[in-house]
Amino acid sequence: MSTPSLGEFELIRRYFAEASTDASVALGIGDDCALLIPAPDEVMAVSIDTLVEGTHFLPGTAPEHLASRLLGASVSDLAAMGARPAWFTLALTLPEATEAWLEPFATSLIAIANALNIRLVGGDTTRGPLSLSAQVHGFVPVDKALRRQGAAVGDLVCVTGTLGDSRAGLETLLKQEPQSATVDYLQARFNAPTPRLKTGLALRGIATACVDISDGVLADLGHLLNNSALGADLNIDTLPLSPQLLAYAGLKQAQQWALTGGEDFELCFTCPASMQDTLASLPEPVAVIGQISPVPGIRLDGQPVSGAGGYDHFAKESS
Amino acid sequence: MSTPSLGEFELIRRYFAEASTDASVALGIGDDCALLIPAPDEVMAVSIDTLVEGTHFLPGTAPEHLASRLLGASVSDLAAMGARPAWFTLALTLPEATEAWLEPFATSLIAIANALNIRLVGGDTTRGPLSLSAQVHGFVPVDKALRRQGAAVGDLVCVTGTLGDSRAGLETLLKQEPQSATVDYLQARFNAPTPRLKTGLALRGIATACVDISDGVLADLGHLLNNSALGADLNIDTLPLSPQLLAYAGLKQAQQWALTGGEDFELCFTCPASMQDTLASLPEPVAVIGQISPVPGIRLDGQPVSGAGGYDHFAKESS
Repeated sequence: MSTPSLGEFELIRRYFAEASTDASVALGIGDDCALLIPAPDEVMAVSIDTLVEGTHFLPGTAPEHLASRLLGASVSDLAAMGARPAWFTLALTLPEATEAWLEPFATSLIAIANALNIRLVGGDTTRGPLSLSAQVHGFVPVDKALRRQGAAVGDLVCVTGTLGDSRAGLETLLKQEPQSATVDYLQARFNAPTPRLKTGLALRGIATACVDISDGVLADLGHLLNNSALGADLNIDTLPLSPQLLAYAGLKQAQQWALTGGEDFELCFTCPASMQDTLASLPEPVAVIGQISPVPGIRLDGQPVSGAGGYDHFAKESS
Repeated sequence: MSTPSLGEFELIRRYFAEASTDASVALGIGDDCALLIPAPDEVMAVSIDTLVEGTHFLPGTAPEHLASRLLGASVSDLAAMGARPAWFTLALTLPEATEAWLEPFATSLIAIANALNIRLVGGDTTRGPLSLSAQVHGFVPVDKALRRQGAAVGDLVCVTGTLGDSRAGLETLLKQEPQSATVDYLQARFNAPTPRLKTGLALRGIATACVDISDGVLADLGHLLNNSALGADLNIDTLPLSPQLLAYAGLKQAQQWALTGGEDFELCFTCPASMQDTLASLPEPVAVIGQISPVPGIRLDGQPVSGAGGYDHFAKESS
């Protein structure tokens, strides 16, 4: 058979075993299952997300960037439901288990998890092509959850933060742009997305529907609209664009990336027009980019948008 | 960008969207998160498991076998805690999304899930080297959960079913043995492990500690013993071996595989010697293979076993 050197069990113990202390964790890492105490009178929101080398990130990406992207993207799904985070599990597949990789990965993962108030409670570590899955668990009162369904004609279409930065950050990585304040900002937006948890919680009772932007605002707004058989009229001048994106890409490319770039992990939500004044008091910046229409489809300054244009992992490339 | 042909969203909808109907599922597949209603007054047991092509299964393995191994192995962790199954999520990474693969996989997965009374509530489908992760969720009263910790000196060491079959099944696949009743049985034990859910539930209040056998009984019993700083004396003649394993491998190889073969997904548990008569009334066959000792380490017919000999994904091969 084989002689363990720096074995799976030892690795997991060394880097992850201390991470799961919380009153809601009856039993953490190290048994066949973790034992968790659900919040009473709330429903549990769960979502699982996978990052695969070569599909979602470039070979050689720093482990701390993988930790921040994985948790940022996963926890963003809780934000989009208006849920508060509780626990997550990690399925980690590595070609080789080295301390040089695991130490910065685990350190970064635990630091981000603490900042997001979410506890690592279990996992599986296996050998294979580099890939990471996280399942996140959160809680929300069932009647307060922000679903994709629920938008109504006349509702405002809103987004948090700025759009397109993440796609521009990827571009700077692909083109190996020299470091600068602009490039650093854009790469940070790609490598370490900020889940809009505070806004998600604040939108309970305000938003009529909500989705996070992982495939580009056109594609994700499209999912939201499909759930209600409605359409939307967007005003391209209202798309929130960062100065860094504009400086790097120019207006036209910036707008294109804002619409179709994917992986911004901002929230796209709808709310009654009567709520417009409330939006300014939300904990994170929000822009109104359009309005819900009874006419299916999305129109940009009145022109129909053909196809969603979002990112589909299994889409065939067309030239 | 790209034009979706048989896109991710359509695939997921087509094959998995109908799977999540249950009173405990407030919102199933298709939103940012599933919304789940936890059982009151119980703790939630969760575990995540990954299967990677080339590490856990041979390239070209039939999708229905991957479905049965994935769910069998994952749900086995719930059995080992004495938990009843509730929900699972699926993270599926595929080089290419084809109906020829997805249809038999999904059909098999849903059929097995229904048989195990566990509901698919969410997932993520991505492109990359073939790999599958499942996270399972179950429920158990906190004081009834079967942990690895809790064995006491004098307790009986017990296992369900028979050991070593799964390792023999792998051998028949590696050697491309011609089909026979024996080969079919052993391959079925490898491809479609049976989680011992009924026994896990019945062991609440009987077992003092429990683990499922995923790395070979010596290794997994070793984890159980390490949790209590105890040892065990095993009697090699009491290892439960199937007639098919004996026919294929002979006694000596059968015993070796029973001890170190891994992936049997039987339960290994301890219980007070006073419970011996109760064991016959358990819903699945149980064998007493030894007794807990205050002397650390595992002895086979009195001879110390050196090293666990179980399967460690990151162990260095030693010749």
